[in-house]
Amino acid sequence: MKDGQDAQNSGAQIPGAQNRETQNSMIRQVGGTPLLDTVAGPGDLKRLSREQLPALTQELRDEIVRVCSQGGLHLASSLGAVDVITALHYVLDSPRDRILFDVGHQAYAHKILTGRRNEMPTLKKEGGLSGFTKVSESEHDAITVGHASTSLANALGMALARDALGKDFRVAAVIGDGSLTGGMALAALNTIGDMGRKMLIVLNDNEMSISENVGAINKFMRGLQVQKWFQEGEGAGKKAVEAVSKPLADFMSRAKNSTRHFFDPASVNPFAAMGVRYVGPVDGHNVQELVWLMERLVDLDGPTILHVVTRKGKGLSYAEADPIYWHGPAKFDPATGEYVPSSAYSWSAAFGDAVTEWAAQDPRTFVVTPAMREGSGLVEFSRVHPHRYLDVGIAEEVAVTAAAGMALQGLRPVVAIYSTFLQRAYDQVLHDVAIENLGVTFCIDRAGIVGADGSTHNGVFDLSYLRSIPGVRIGLPKDAAELRGMLKYAQTHPGPFAIRYPRGNTARVPAGTWPDLEWGRWERLREGGDVVILAGGKALDYALKAAEDLPGVGVVNARFVKPLDTAMLRELAQARALITVEDNTVVGGFGSAVLEALSGMNLRPTVRVLGIPDEFQDHATVESVHARAGIDAQAIRTVLAELGIDVPIEV
Amino acid sequence: MKDGQDAQNSGAQIPGAQNRETQNSMIRQVGGTPLLDTVAGPGDLKRLSREQLPALTQELRDEIVRVCSQGGLHLASSLGAVDVITALHYVLDSPRDRILFDVGHQAYAHKILTGRRNEMPTLKKEGGLSGFTKVSESEHDAITVGHASTSLANALGMALARDALGKDFRVAAVIGDGSLTGGMALAALNTIGDMGRKMLIVLNDNEMSISENVGAINKFMRGLQVQKWFQEGEGAGKKAVEAVSKPLADFMSRAKNSTRHFFDPASVNPFAAMGVRYVGPVDGHNVQELVWLMERLVDLDGPTILHVVTRKGKGLSYAEADPIYWHGPAKFDPATGEYVPSSAYSWSAAFGDAVTEWAAQDPRTFVVTPAMREGSGLVEFSRVHPHRYLDVGIAEEVAVTAAAGMALQGLRPVVAIYSTFLQRAYDQVLHDVAIENLGVTFCIDRAGIVGADGSTHNGVFDLSYLRSIPGVRIGLPKDAAELRGMLKYAQTHPGPFAIRYPRGNTARVPAGTWPDLEWGRWERLREGGDVVILAGGKALDYALKAAEDLPGVGVVNARFVKPLDTAMLRELAQARALITVEDNTVVGGFGSAVLEALSGMNLRPTVRVLGIPDEFQDHATVESVHARAGIDAQAIRTVLAELGIDVPIEV
Repeated sequence: MKDGQDAQNSGAQIPGAQNRETQNSMIRQVGGTPLLDTVAGPGDLKRLSREQLPALTQELRDEIVRVCSQGGLHLASSLGAVDVITALHYVLDSPRDRILFDVGHQAYAHKILTGRRNEMPTLKKEGGLSGFTKVSESEHDAITVGHASTSLANALGMALARDALGKDFRVAAVIGDGSLTGGMALAALNTIGDMGRKMLIVLNDNEMSISENVGAINKFMRGLQVQKWFQEGEGAGKKAVEAVSKPLADFMSRAKNSTRHFFDPASVNPFAAMGVRYVGPVDGHNVQELVWLMERLVDLDGPTILHVVTRKGKGLSYAEADPIYWHGPAKFDPATGEYVPSSAYSWSAAFGDAVTEWAAQDPRTFVVTPAMREGSGLVEFSRVHPHRYLDVGIAEEVAVTAAAGMALQGLRPVVAIYSTFLQRAYDQVLHDVAIENLGVTFCIDRAGIVGADGSTHNGVFDLSYLRSIPGVRIGLPKDAAELRGMLKYAQTHPGPFAIRYPRGNTARVPAGTWPDLEWGRWERLREGGDVVILAGGKALDYALKAAEDLPGVGVVNARFVKPLDTAMLRELAQARALITVEDNTVVGGFGSAVLEALSGMNLRPTVRVLGIPDEFQDHATVESVHARAGIDAQAIRTVLAELGIDVPIEV
Repeated sequence: MKDGQDAQNSGAQIPGAQNRETQNSMIRQVGGTPLLDTVAGPGDLKRLSREQLPALTQELRDEIVRVCSQGGLHLASSLGAVDVITALHYVLDSPRDRILFDVGHQAYAHKILTGRRNEMPTLKKEGGLSGFTKVSESEHDAITVGHASTSLANALGMALARDALGKDFRVAAVIGDGSLTGGMALAALNTIGDMGRKMLIVLNDNEMSISENVGAINKFMRGLQVQKWFQEGEGAGKKAVEAVSKPLADFMSRAKNSTRHFFDPASVNPFAAMGVRYVGPVDGHNVQELVWLMERLVDLDGPTILHVVTRKGKGLSYAEADPIYWHGPAKFDPATGEYVPSSAYSWSAAFGDAVTEWAAQDPRTFVVTPAMREGSGLVEFSRVHPHRYLDVGIAEEVAVTAAAGMALQGLRPVVAIYSTFLQRAYDQVLHDVAIENLGVTFCIDRAGIVGADGSTHNGVFDLSYLRSIPGVRIGLPKDAAELRGMLKYAQTHPGPFAIRYPRGNTARVPAGTWPDLEWGRWERLREGGDVVILAGGKALDYALKAAEDLPGVGVVNARFVKPLDTAMLRELAQARALITVEDNTVVGGFGSAVLEALSGMNLRPTVRVLGIPDEFQDHATVESVHARAGIDAQAIRTVLAELGIDVPIEV
């Protein structure tokens, strides 16, 4: 369920839908006035009869498919959650009752049902709807979210607030089986079971994260699914509750006296063992049955898990058949599922190719991913080197510390992770890796502004938080060849290294490209000593474009943020002014590193620090955010002009 | 099991041992040559007969009590783990086999048995042994540690490395029930159960963290303990294994076919449900039985949990009676347990008094702690406001995000947390609190150098990592009154606030002290415009001392690091030079903030940035580390002299 995967080509062979036969069951015309036209909010939904709900969910699916066919949206998970969301809004009373969605990317039906139907085409576009739930967007969005596994702790806090303030609203959280592999979700469940506050947790079990799901809990849930109630098919959920109606009634009193009598048919259930009432598994696509169940469960005292089984992509045959691709597909024809595979070569693919090739000659290389095989470009690696590949699920902390354990025993692990998700493991990088200077390489994807995923996903903090950790070396390759040079260096030198690269594409390089470079040495790309622009990674492209044709303006590929090339910096400080440019917050980032180094050398040139301002950046295109932030070529030229450089008006 | 609590008086009434009758069972003379004299390493241990082991563990306890009576060490947990550690070293073959200790503060017996007996009196002293296990200290220390819940992910990584490299050593991790409440431990267990690699996990269940334990898993374990095998007493462990010897033999083959038949007598066991073989609970103080069990379990395929029940403080009656105090006692008389309670008023107590008093008049105030009630000065709060107090266990991520949920529903939560442990929740502060500018107050204890606990516990990164997060305001009170002023401001204004204060003591202030202050306004404490020293919190004490009697040297209480008082900074920049001093890393901290602001205003005074150098600081006294780091009064005077101030030689 973790978000962040998108239509970006990760270099993997994705089974496309182009060859499937045309199917248009989703797009068929519903007879009469569409029910959805009558639903301007949850109150309208409640006026429908239960018998109308299946038709409504079909319309919701049609709408979601239409919206998502523009590309770059979360299709498969949103289709899978339609029935659960409809039932929740039918039974609960939002916004008084709080409905929380873990990650929030599956909540398109929720947005449509809560008055945002007309804005759906603006999803993830500048000024439009967020791709996740967002408190500031709607009173119906209980939490602002994007990262996985936060819903249960939030729900716990809300239930405690409700009880402390003497209120009586209801709290319901929808969490996927993938999100439940996250440590903070499990730890929250531990406290939820302990505190015993009233809440409904809908475990939306679709048997996968973005990738195939992993972990023991997942295996356990597979076991639950073969229990007879679920196998009985239609009506099974009702039977389940009817069968336990007596235990339901006196559950709480019995629970006080025993840890052994659980409201779980099999009596073998980690949720029940943790003190949370468990009901399920039931069919997550039978909306009437879900309503029936939720009505009976939502007002029970204490926490209840309703385990529903759903299919990602439900109702759309090509999405059901390949939900990994259809998690966040490119633009497609809703009738046929046809799409044009991207021919672009992403940074993720560049990394994936590099590490796959490197590992073939270095048996110590081992790759760890927190549930991001596709997004990080590791499909091929996992196929070629299956015994040197670990997916820990959505548990970044475990990914980093497991890598530390590997490094302690002679491996040279590579943690492939998105910048925004490495935030989850700041302490593990510091405490488990850096203190003993262990040889762990962090290949940090989606660094910098990511665009459409917005404020929860922008990777604009890594330079700041990693730089604060002693001994972590940080590089920003300008292209795939430099990425390979940095990877080679990292895999053959002691200590932790971080290599960060952006969302987007780069030029392909031939296999066997392993340039030598010295970590910590910058590269002068353009001579000029009047004003010098220092930039690495994506910002370097802007710097080069800005300096084009401007005599006296130098450009340095500041590809290492830690350590800095202080020898070159000392020379550069002779310039009239320096401009630092970074796709990272201006607080504590590359520019600050330059200021710190200059202060340490007691050099005081004029320095202009350009970077992402100290505020969260909403979703828009990457280019738009960069322009707004003032780091693109035009913005740099404006600063050059302010510094007295003769800049033509048009870039 | 989380460390970080120490002899520091937290303002709570601690039931002392002074009134207990003298007891000296621990200090008695063992007849003949002490066995411990014959054990210079694990190899010597193996030459002892099993029958000698109980006597050896008694000697280990005596030794640990003697060493700990100097004060400031981890007594109770170390006593509780003596038998488990002895058995592990008797059965396994360290350093070839890897024995990991979660947190590592319970490993004193391990240090004694692995050749460090003579150095035990140097524990936690400068140049001496670390209070935890540390890879660079001994080949027998498998991991460097201090924070909780990391051992399982490390063990997973080591087992995968072993198998990838074709080696065959054994991996054993000792983890307490408190550490198991940490999300990353639960998440690691999820992957351990999935991967099925051979390892032994000793679950050291003493029914408590530093504080009383919380959480549903804990409740569950209490249930397990009443099972009949455990109640049968002596020899129960053997019977347990004998009873299941057949299931043991064919466990793995059966496990493949079913998720229902577990090697757990009750068949209700979350560990077994996660795919980890479970044996227990057994008596964790019967060393011979532990040896018998471990010999049979350590070479089984796949992961095995051996659940042992121990007592913190085992063998020392006064410690068994009050293990919370005796977790990290002050100096005491080993024969009687007599000690002199500290009369000092700690920063923790100052916070605890302030928040308890504030909450009495503000029903929205709710305190959340991650298992640090005593250490954070919250014993009184939890007693006075039990319904507005939440201990989530060792799960900092849950603490922060539960607070976010509370803030979303109208509470004004205060997260009381140590600086080093807030590192665990960097992403939650950013993603769950800051993006929506939620009203959560972080009261950050043990900020700056903590001294004896060393590199894993120094809170010298918070200014850097918090400053990078948009909207988080950061204050450093100079005394208890300013702490109260900041708390009042935070609880009555929107958005997130962080208030950080050090380990150590401060002056008591009267109840009702609630000074007004404006967040973001510095305070001129000493006029002087030649050179101005800017410092907040503990560093301010040094600055004032350094400037004493030096005309022309100004001192500013830079109590707000975010936002800075840029208006005052603009004026101060007229000085010949500025000196910033901080008890935080020089990378991205307060000094960098000043450099950034000056650069933004295009002001270029000479600035000298003093702070903790960009390397990990080993254990020593706080004063010694500050001197070494160059931030104490003497160091500041040296810089003043370099800047041309006429400084007398002696401070």
